Amino acid sequence: MNTIGRIFRVSVFGESHGESVGVTIDGCPAGLPLAAEDLLADLDRRKGGTQKGATPRQEADFPFFKSGVFNGYTTGFPVTLLFENNNTRSEDYNKLRSIPRPGHADWVAHHKFGGYEDYRGGGHFSARLTTGLVAAGAIAKKLMPEILIRSVITEIAGEKDLEKGLQKGIDAKDSVGGIIECRVTGVPAGLGEPYFDSLESVLAHLLFAIPAVKGVEFGAGFAAATMFGSEHNDAIEDMNGRTRSNHAGGIVGGISNGNELVFRIAVKPTSSTPKEQQSLNWETGAVERFSVKGRHDLCVALRAPVIVEAVTAIVLADFMLLEQRIKHVL
Amino acid sequence: MNTIGRIFRVSVFGESHGESVGVTIDGCPAGLPLAAEDLLADLDRRKGGTQKGATPRQEADFPFFKSGVFNGYTTGFPVTLLFENNNTRSEDYNKLRSIPRPGHADWVAHHKFGGYEDYRGGGHFSARLTTGLVAAGAIAKKLMPEILIRSVITEIAGEKDLEKGLQKGIDAKDSVGGIIECRVTGVPAGLGEPYFDSLESVLAHLLFAIPAVKGVEFGAGFAAATMFGSEHNDAIEDMNGRTRSNHAGGIVGGISNGNELVFRIAVKPTSSTPKEQQSLNWETGAVERFSVKGRHDLCVALRAPVIVEAVTAIVLADFMLLEQRIKHVL
Amino acid sequence: MNTIGRIFRVSVFGESHGESVGVTIDGCPAGLPLAAEDLLADLDRRKGGTQKGATPRQEADFPFFKSGVFNGYTTGFPVTLLFENNNTRSEDYNKLRSIPRPGHADWVAHHKFGGYEDYRGGGHFSARLTTGLVAAGAIAKKLMPEILIRSVITEIAGEKDLEKGLQKGIDAKDSVGGIIECRVTGVPAGLGEPYFDSLESVLAHLLFAIPAVKGVEFGAGFAAATMFGSEHNDAIEDMNGRTRSNHAGGIVGGISNGNELVFRIAVKPTSSTPKEQQSLNWETGAVERFSVKGRHDLCVALRAPVIVEAVTAIVLADFMLLEQRIKHVL
Amino acid sequence: MNTIGRIFRVSVFGESHGESVGVTIDGCPAGLPLAAEDLLADLDRRKGGTQKGATPRQEADFPFFKSGVFNGYTTGFPVTLLFENNNTRSEDYNKLRSIPRPGHADWVAHHKFGGYEDYRGGGHFSARLTTGLVAAGAIAKKLMPEILIRSVITEIAGEKDLEKGLQKGIDAKDSVGGIIECRVTGVPAGLGEPYFDSLESVLAHLLFAIPAVKGVEFGAGFAAATMFGSEHNDAIEDMNGRTRSNHAGGIVGGISNGNELVFRIAVKPTSSTPKEQQSLNWETGAVERFSVKGRHDLCVALRAPVIVEAVTAIVLADFMLLEQRIKHVL
Repeated sequence: MNTIGRIFRVSVFGESHGESVGVTIDGCPAGLPLAAEDLLADLDRRKGGTQKGATPRQEADFPFFKSGVFNGYTTGFPVTLLFENNNTRSEDYNKLRSIPRPGHADWVAHHKFGGYEDYRGGGHFSARLTTGLVAAGAIAKKLMPEILIRSVITEIAGEKDLEKGLQKGIDAKDSVGGIIECRVTGVPAGLGEPYFDSLESVLAHLLFAIPAVKGVEFGAGFAAATMFGSEHNDAIEDMNGRTRSNHAGGIVGGISNGNELVFRIAVKPTSSTPKEQQSLNWETGAVERFSVKGRHDLCVALRAPVIVEAVTAIVLADFMLLEQRIKHVL
Repeated sequence: MNTIGRIFRVSVFGESHGESVGVTIDGCPAGLPLAAEDLLADLDRRKGGTQKGATPRQEADFPFFKSGVFNGYTTGFPVTLLFENNNTRSEDYNKLRSIPRPGHADWVAHHKFGGYEDYRGGGHFSARLTTGLVAAGAIAKKLMPEILIRSVITEIAGEKDLEKGLQKGIDAKDSVGGIIECRVTGVPAGLGEPYFDSLESVLAHLLFAIPAVKGVEFGAGFAAATMFGSEHNDAIEDMNGRTRSNHAGGIVGGISNGNELVFRIAVKPTSSTPKEQQSLNWETGAVERFSVKGRHDLCVALRAPVIVEAVTAIVLADFMLLEQRIKHVL
Repeated sequence: MNTIGRIFRVSVFGESHGESVGVTIDGCPAGLPLAAEDLLADLDRRKGGTQKGATPRQEADFPFFKSGVFNGYTTGFPVTLLFENNNTRSEDYNKLRSIPRPGHADWVAHHKFGGYEDYRGGGHFSARLTTGLVAAGAIAKKLMPEILIRSVITEIAGEKDLEKGLQKGIDAKDSVGGIIECRVTGVPAGLGEPYFDSLESVLAHLLFAIPAVKGVEFGAGFAAATMFGSEHNDAIEDMNGRTRSNHAGGIVGGISNGNELVFRIAVKPTSSTPKEQQSLNWETGAVERFSVKGRHDLCVALRAPVIVEAVTAIVLADFMLLEQRIKHVL
Repeated sequence: MNTIGRIFRVSVFGESHGESVGVTIDGCPAGLPLAAEDLLADLDRRKGGTQKGATPRQEADFPFFKSGVFNGYTTGFPVTLLFENNNTRSEDYNKLRSIPRPGHADWVAHHKFGGYEDYRGGGHFSARLTTGLVAAGAIAKKLMPEILIRSVITEIAGEKDLEKGLQKGIDAKDSVGGIIECRVTGVPAGLGEPYFDSLESVLAHLLFAIPAVKGVEFGAGFAAATMFGSEHNDAIEDMNGRTRSNHAGGIVGGISNGNELVFRIAVKPTSSTPKEQQSLNWETGAVERFSVKGRHDLCVALRAPVIVEAVTAIVLADFMLLEQRIKHVL
């Protein structure tokens, strides 16, 4: 199922080297002024092409509106956006067809989809699909101007000095991972439910939908497991629920408590490392050494902050609509 | 929404000090032999009353079948189980009514539900609701005898020697948290999808639905962020997809790859610490010192392994049905 | 799947001759005063035992609240109601086991559930399950005091004089069907969507979920097919959308237009007719003549009006919440 | 919500006079050979331009595949199809802007979407959106070659002689409605559930999603209400569940019984009648006489049979997948 959300529903489609990738946002309120320009800043952040360590592949990433906007405003009906794929070099991938790349979805995709999957550039598994998520996130952000979402990389290759972390990868001719922290202010108290619709559950659901994410923690997170209760508990200080500390990361009992949302994600190193690796050759059945060619990010974490912001915005917009804090007609 | 799942759908209801808590499992295949006895072993593990550090509150936790089983077999229709609440001391909680307990849902519940929430013992937020999850998990396990799910506590209060960790809390007269690791063997390759139905997404969704969980990581998890790609990538070694290492924790591209599933969760220290704490008195508007009375776990992580197993089984059973690997009529 | 609704979600469970039947309402706003007494009037109408032609089986039909109500008000969490089955005579049904009753679900249930189905009294297929629907409908009605839903039988056995229609069945020693009309005033304009969430679609979905319903029409309905457009179109007469005629039955483009909702349903004659019938004996493979014993309604349509009202109320409450016309906390 | 289905999920988007309309099919199994040519026959039937009484507007209605097909086969990922709108005359509609057309969604759309709706040619309400449904239906049909779905018009303007019915409209210079009957052979017994997922419920849901449908009946339908039970009951004649008569229309207890599916729908006369009508002028607040210009069908029922087939195929494919009767990888 390629759709998420209950009111603000986001669906992705497309393949990395197919004709296009895209997104449909169903349930966006009517009356939001919306144009391609509103999405370009975040889409540019996702491309990240000028950073050290980012892939030189550059799609125009221009969002073509196919529906849902009329006279410059959303209509209340599905907004479908298309991104054309016009900068693909499938031949780079065809030669890897007989060797499933370690860390990539090649083997599971082939196993699950019986060879019918579009294997070029990862097909539907490609991070190219996050283009649609970023566009949907930018729309979600516009719906909630009072909420400020800010994600940053706090660590690369274990280094808090990010340049140093990247250099580590460059020196080793290997790919590296990183940690991203997201902080959100302006979230009203009351979003989320205990159990299955806990804000942590729904956020984690989408955060783990981002390719390469292998860990998610809220507030003190894993460190909480080493704390005493009296240390970890955040004392409430006023009638608005403001707490002295914020070890809970702004979520208690699955519900936002009005304090800053704080969470972190772990991004594994890019699976496409320039280093020579070992894998099985499906045709021969032998284990071979090989190298991944093509244009790849040294550190996919570099592009991830805007994607983290996007899925956070998508989740929050959905809860804000569900909690009747955004009107269906603005 | 108190329901999760697409085919194997689990709904919880009830309040800690209300008449009962319960669970409905809709979509369980017909023909599974099922009786209360099948659920008791896991329900007993959840109670955990004989362990050092666990609450002395002891419910009978006996599952009364209200529907869905006939002549000892599931019928294919909803299985509703009721657990009576017959060991409650609500008076312990009434006196705290004016002081929202730090770390608990008291403040957010009151804010969100306008004072109509059942505040006794945490009401619907109480971990008592996990009784239903554990029962549903035991049913899910029975559906997949070939899959073995095993969760253990690996750390308490930062100590790998668990007795030592507990003693740390006892000595400090404070509550403590812990780390739980879950390993699952027998999972076929092919469960999950890229993006929104990634196995990591759906597992994390339910893991974060467990009260007190603040972090989830798969395979190498947060440590992956410090590794090189060539280190982290798991080399495929045979046609069945077996990998030499398992840094991915058995999931690649959101899909199980046939290797062991491995993930860890961080459980915060019990919010109800015996230590004196500070919080706001809603009636006076002043910050006061107070102590939580009542019977509480020193370390909620002690009861959590069976709950982790349960939600894992629920998620896997749902995917197994979705992927047509379990028949609707057994 | 035994759940319906997006915000106001209703789930049914139970079997006719099992221990109990019940319903869970998830998503009911907090703060609604609610007690068993609020449900009894509609539950009594469903029983309909004193009417000519209705079954003499009389369950107490008392709703036991298991969760979701505290201090006389809904809490915002799932309301689970149980109805005990204490007036069953399963032996009446056991003897029919080898002959699937024509018009009943016996054959399809056996085919689909492999013999594991609870066949006593129709099991989960029994109209006894509508007890929960009626209770959920009564709660939905309480949420919308400004909306008045009124269903009546307009025809029995083809007769508009209802006594005469019933007498026709009594004279023929055969069961009869009927037509029910439902009219709803106070529905605000704007509920529903074009296409999949059209108000007609969602209402029809639930109306056809009522056992024995074989037809649904809105406004002029089937007669519309014989009209000219200029006749059928309802001229708009004022700024509130009031129309001169109401051939549309209050729904245009899938959306309520603020006029009275009007629809009709066709209820087939009770499948359990006292008349001797023919069917296959599964054990012998021969076609046999047999008679249905047990206590049955001569005309199930007699009990249906309150069920029609109930599902209508459920649908409208869901749309009212979805359209932010009912607050989550009252 | 513009999505329907549980496994085979169909989403529509677009506006009549916007840039395009389209459809996404998520959950289509991998390995289905698929090309535009497979869809053209049904898409041509929907256009119906050469028939007497059908609108002269002719879109190319060519389906552009944007995703989900690779090397001529479905990949198991979302199939998105786009239809360009290149034959629109919006000016015809602009002049009606101040007068909501009776029978159309103009008034409700304006009321609900606050004036942000795309009003040109009905916008998202337009039957142009059924292009996507027909394409999705053609794909669903390809998935189930053993199932034969056949819809025909059986009545126009109350006449069984269809030419005569149409002529009635032409003579009266007015639009007319009709009845469509659908018969489906090859449906296995066992699709559907009692209550909310009854086959009748789900079929009716989609049938009422078709613009202009005002009534749905299964088997004997409304006539069943006038029959005796002994007449209406279909005697089972063999171990495969074949019945002598088929008053149930192939569905008992919400579940297909292996006999032919039979149902009928009532289609109201086209709202855009050439006849002069009365409606409110929003700007002046006065009731005015006016005529609808533009190219319109005299009888929308003429185009409906293929749409009825399409939604039937969509529903059946979803149930066939849900019941594990179609494999995820063909």
